[in-house]
Amino acid sequence: MKASIITIGEEILTGQIIDTNSAWLGRQLTDIGVVVSSTISVRDNKQDIIRAIELGLENTDLVVLTGGLGPTKDDITKSAIAAKIGAEMYFDEELYNSIKRYFKKVGFTLTEAHREQCYMPQGVQLLKNMMGTAPGMLFALGGKKILSLPGVPYEMKWVYENSFKDQFLQNENRLQYIEHRTVRTVGIGETRVESKIEDITKKLPPYITVAFLPGLGEVKVRLTLRGSVKQTKELTGFEQDIKNRIGYYVYGSGTTKIEEALLNVYVQSGKSMAIAESCTGGFLAHKLTSVPGASDYFLGGVIAYDNSIKENILGVDPNTLEKHGAVSEETVLEMLDGVISKYNSDVGAAISGVMGPTGGTEEKPVGTIWLAWGDRDKKYTEKLQLGKDRIKNIEYTTVVAMNRLRLLLTH
Amino acid sequence: MKASIITIGEEILTGQIIDTNSAWLGRQLTDIGVVVSSTISVRDNKQDIIRAIELGLENTDLVVLTGGLGPTKDDITKSAIAAKIGAEMYFDEELYNSIKRYFKKVGFTLTEAHREQCYMPQGVQLLKNMMGTAPGMLFALGGKKILSLPGVPYEMKWVYENSFKDQFLQNENRLQYIEHRTVRTVGIGETRVESKIEDITKKLPPYITVAFLPGLGEVKVRLTLRGSVKQTKELTGFEQDIKNRIGYYVYGSGTTKIEEALLNVYVQSGKSMAIAESCTGGFLAHKLTSVPGASDYFLGGVIAYDNSIKENILGVDPNTLEKHGAVSEETVLEMLDGVISKYNSDVGAAISGVMGPTGGTEEKPVGTIWLAWGDRDKKYTEKLQLGKDRIKNIEYTTVVAMNRLRLLLTH
Repeated sequence: MKASIITIGEEILTGQIIDTNSAWLGRQLTDIGVVVSSTISVRDNKQDIIRAIELGLENTDLVVLTGGLGPTKDDITKSAIAAKIGAEMYFDEELYNSIKRYFKKVGFTLTEAHREQCYMPQGVQLLKNMMGTAPGMLFALGGKKILSLPGVPYEMKWVYENSFKDQFLQNENRLQYIEHRTVRTVGIGETRVESKIEDITKKLPPYITVAFLPGLGEVKVRLTLRGSVKQTKELTGFEQDIKNRIGYYVYGSGTTKIEEALLNVYVQSGKSMAIAESCTGGFLAHKLTSVPGASDYFLGGVIAYDNSIKENILGVDPNTLEKHGAVSEETVLEMLDGVISKYNSDVGAAISGVMGPTGGTEEKPVGTIWLAWGDRDKKYTEKLQLGKDRIKNIEYTTVVAMNRLRLLLTH
Repeated sequence: MKASIITIGEEILTGQIIDTNSAWLGRQLTDIGVVVSSTISVRDNKQDIIRAIELGLENTDLVVLTGGLGPTKDDITKSAIAAKIGAEMYFDEELYNSIKRYFKKVGFTLTEAHREQCYMPQGVQLLKNMMGTAPGMLFALGGKKILSLPGVPYEMKWVYENSFKDQFLQNENRLQYIEHRTVRTVGIGETRVESKIEDITKKLPPYITVAFLPGLGEVKVRLTLRGSVKQTKELTGFEQDIKNRIGYYVYGSGTTKIEEALLNVYVQSGKSMAIAESCTGGFLAHKLTSVPGASDYFLGGVIAYDNSIKENILGVDPNTLEKHGAVSEETVLEMLDGVISKYNSDVGAAISGVMGPTGGTEEKPVGTIWLAWGDRDKKYTEKLQLGKDRIKNIEYTTVVAMNRLRLLLTH
């Protein structure tokens, strides 16, 4: 079964917001064996929406729309669908009453816009939305289906997961078996990954394809099996061959993130961690604590943005700062000592650098970053020389730090 | 002038990565007066790419492709374009030499894949890429243009900005004047914003449109002027009316983020800030330090994830933790006291909560979060009761905290 995804909203096309809905839906549909053959974003414009629906119906069996269902003026998806399928609108009393009840409960004021929102195209199946006031809608059209979901991400997810998915899986027989395997690497470039495993990928049968997905500091190798039967064993074999070949650089598989791989390693070892961040400003701590269960090994951190904090909280010697500067091997080593002893942790890391876009000197240009990591007995340092993009520098440095902290226990 | 954007890669359709390139390109093209009428994502598949190009050429004057130009096997955009325009391939010696020089300089190994990458369609104009090995490509086709950019975001941005934009602006006469104004609000819902300003938006002339863009804790009101002349004064008038009406909830305009608005307020006031985070795990510090210049007011923070840190570093009384728990008004107030006195800051904030997805109790279910903020003289607290989505809870709490810290100085 093939699907196309349509996201609606001028704000997507003008880049005021990033369309994360398509990606989420793509993942969900892929998971249940539906092949997403295109996603398209169009304006809040009846004609454009209708044209996109027509294109979707031409090439695929399921057209999924998100956006344009809310109560405000720029929302016109519903009338576009009604026009396309030639349906009259009716006022859904039940929906209106449920919105009234909900608003009374949370103490919000009902507006005329909420009443207008209750006009629905005849023949639609309404899909309950417990996260907002606009229900999802499902239409059948000559053997094909149109699914319309709210645009607000958590509303869309709720409606898809709770009001659509099970019903859909029951009604459809998936004809094609699909399975992905992802080998996740860090610290090695895309081309080098590819050439390292070229002889393996050359042996792949036609029903298994490979893709290389580069990210900041990371490269994912994805194998995709598409066929009428489960060739799981064969797929597993290739996955294992690739993992063995890339070895040291592999930190996980599937959807595992590096911060999750790190958590697993630390929780298994029973070691605790504390970190001292200057230039990454809390982003490393955020990544570590974004994973549920982080409190099982992560004690906390010091964000020593100002030099006074490096001195007073972490105990960095003012002479070190004076002589070598805040961005130096000497300073990060003292920050590391400080956080391990003050936080009483087994392992630690410290980072100090010039993230940009300005603030560099000839000796230490923007993008100069020092890292230190280790335990009470053994400490390591590394200097990075990155570019001038502040956010990219913060994110890349965080990936390197997480990888160093992981390898500290595994290699 | 109308444009369509095509992004290429199975990883986008299966949701393995989020397509941020379209949003960035949408913003750039909008800025120079080009109307983006659709974005479409298709697989690494020659036929699908060709079909998308055809659709783009049908409806728009400029087709922009990203992705599928790199050296690895799944990259086939180039051959799809060559097939579409009927061009032969030639080996670009100059390109090959420049890649060889670059690799020698950075000490990487050249592979056969890099050599293959140097075959180019005849008639193409190559666009220099100083961030990677694959150049951009520009084709003219019967009065229309096809622009092909690398898929790696920072490469795409570099090629667009340095090798395409100026040339394009010189060659094209933009027929339409376009201007956006965005009023940014926090702490008020979409429907309430809309009804508050309904009488103003009803008065908008047909060439000015309004859109409401909800985010986590935020709603943006965007006015768009499209016309043949600059009606800037009229647009400014409506923007000001909307700002005045929404008043207290407005934190900025244009592309200003709340962390930027906060930075401006603090730098102007000359007050310093330090924060103590438990459940947000560094995300608040990250948001504050993501803005260049944060070091002018932000001293740093304590990530007191473990209770031992709350006690030993922030000086929270063990009895308070014992009696009221880590997630309590009493604890966040002591955390706030601790960070202000230890970090010697003028202003501070403290956050402790249960972010989920598990770890709640009957009394303090997942989503219970306590915030405290203030200075040495006056302290405030607030309790949030959110849902079970860990990341959403972290992000929403951070928006609330930033807004409280902003209002502390402005209202």
